[in-house]
Amino acid sequence: MTAVLMDGKALAAKVRADVARDVAALGHVGLATVLVGDDPASHVYIAAKHKAATEAGIDARDVRLPADTSEEDVLALVDRLNHDDEVDGILVQLPLPGHLDETKVTYAVSPAKDVDGFHPVNAGNLYLGTPIHVPATPSGCMELLAAYDVDPAGKEAVVIGRSEIVGRPMAMLLMHANATVTVCHSRTRDLAAHVSRADIVVAAVGRPGIVNAEMVKPGAAVLDVGLTRTDEGIRGDVDASVASVAGHLTPMPGGTGPMTIACLLQSTLKAARYRRGLLAFPGA
Amino acid sequence: MTAVLMDGKALAAKVRADVARDVAALGHVGLATVLVGDDPASHVYIAAKHKAATEAGIDARDVRLPADTSEEDVLALVDRLNHDDEVDGILVQLPLPGHLDETKVTYAVSPAKDVDGFHPVNAGNLYLGTPIHVPATPSGCMELLAAYDVDPAGKEAVVIGRSEIVGRPMAMLLMHANATVTVCHSRTRDLAAHVSRADIVVAAVGRPGIVNAEMVKPGAAVLDVGLTRTDEGIRGDVDASVASVAGHLTPMPGGTGPMTIACLLQSTLKAARYRRGLLAFPGA
Repeated sequence: MTAVLMDGKALAAKVRADVARDVAALGHVGLATVLVGDDPASHVYIAAKHKAATEAGIDARDVRLPADTSEEDVLALVDRLNHDDEVDGILVQLPLPGHLDETKVTYAVSPAKDVDGFHPVNAGNLYLGTPIHVPATPSGCMELLAAYDVDPAGKEAVVIGRSEIVGRPMAMLLMHANATVTVCHSRTRDLAAHVSRADIVVAAVGRPGIVNAEMVKPGAAVLDVGLTRTDEGIRGDVDASVASVAGHLTPMPGGTGPMTIACLLQSTLKAARYRRGLLAFPGA
Repeated sequence: MTAVLMDGKALAAKVRADVARDVAALGHVGLATVLVGDDPASHVYIAAKHKAATEAGIDARDVRLPADTSEEDVLALVDRLNHDDEVDGILVQLPLPGHLDETKVTYAVSPAKDVDGFHPVNAGNLYLGTPIHVPATPSGCMELLAAYDVDPAGKEAVVIGRSEIVGRPMAMLLMHANATVTVCHSRTRDLAAHVSRADIVVAAVGRPGIVNAEMVKPGAAVLDVGLTRTDEGIRGDVDASVASVAGHLTPMPGGTGPMTIACLLQSTLKAARYRRGLLAFPGA
């Protein structure tokens, strides 16, 4: 068996085109990104997000602050953006420099504008099954499953990794989609046993090749979110051998990565709808 | 093998004595319960909570409203309680009559006073691993495990049921305690297969005897949260036969039930500490 490749690049292009169409219809959609300091990877990510946002017709504001900016100044900036009618979505790029309290900054972003879905109100609503803004990577994985007609309902799903930005929200989305979900992590005793019974595997732990062909159930859908820069280039969590066993597999690159950015644009569009009252913001 | 019974009644008595001691030290701790309408089970629960609170020296205010109270009036009451310095904790008994929006009312309770842990901010913080107020039943289960030296770390845990008040928070607490957690529910294909590999089983689905001796792994810790009123009396989700296989088992009654009320008192005490600034409320 050779897996059907889940083409994240093609699906992302479609999502981005849909977003562009809706942005044009709304007239103006604004995204403000905040980057504090000089983390090289963060610069790459922010640049990619800006390029995609701009291409979708989103008015993307690129706020950059020196690494030694005080917490007070960061919070004041976030507050201004919260009240700025030109700004629908706010994204504070993590990680922040060590002297800044990420929790405090994350709390400061208005939940309705929190396109990353990191605010506890958004995390709570995802957990409660009433998602508002959902972290983009797991959203993208759900879109990929849907695009390839892999319905999680009644299926066994194994999520490897329990991070706040991928593993945990992924588990919630799959559970709400009626999968039976197991979350595996560094303390899991027998990862292979879990993976071997899974119809859907999402690997998001950053350990190259941790999922291999021997442990994957024939026909399973395997989504690779892990990304490790090695001397031999970028490697995912899923070994290439899995392509011969899985039913569906995301390529790396070109799988879950492009969908992450596309889903961030979707969230920005959603934020614009919240701000205009076109969507009711829960509890507001 | 005959299971060690996890004596929730005895542990609850100890927890309640500890709470009473701390309440006395604080001087005054207030809990307001709000009961709208005439649901008979709710009356029983509220009475039990008041009795326990009063015995712990908590100033328990019993607010009862007629079933046809308007949403506006309920929200106005909650707002007054949020600002009442005599009230540390607020508990709105669910379910509410059908014309009231439970989500809206739950949102209205100040997160710091939300001793049930139902507010999205509290749900979110539990999910994020920074628990503030946690639903009492899963808290009680964790206390029982700790009291009997069942450490979830590295263990296989299976939670049956995904409700917002038991299954889901239970899964989060076990995951944060480093268990490998699987959440089973009505759409799970093979419940027995999951239960049979679990070191810890929490059954919270309200289907009498759904967990039986044949499916339990010898030596597992089994916690019974389900509660169904039948013609033959109250029955749990765990069949009596499990006592011959499990390593630890909660009796029904006298297991998880008493701990639920004890943990509610603990939350009320915690709310009093938040209000006095003795504990920092996250993000505040």
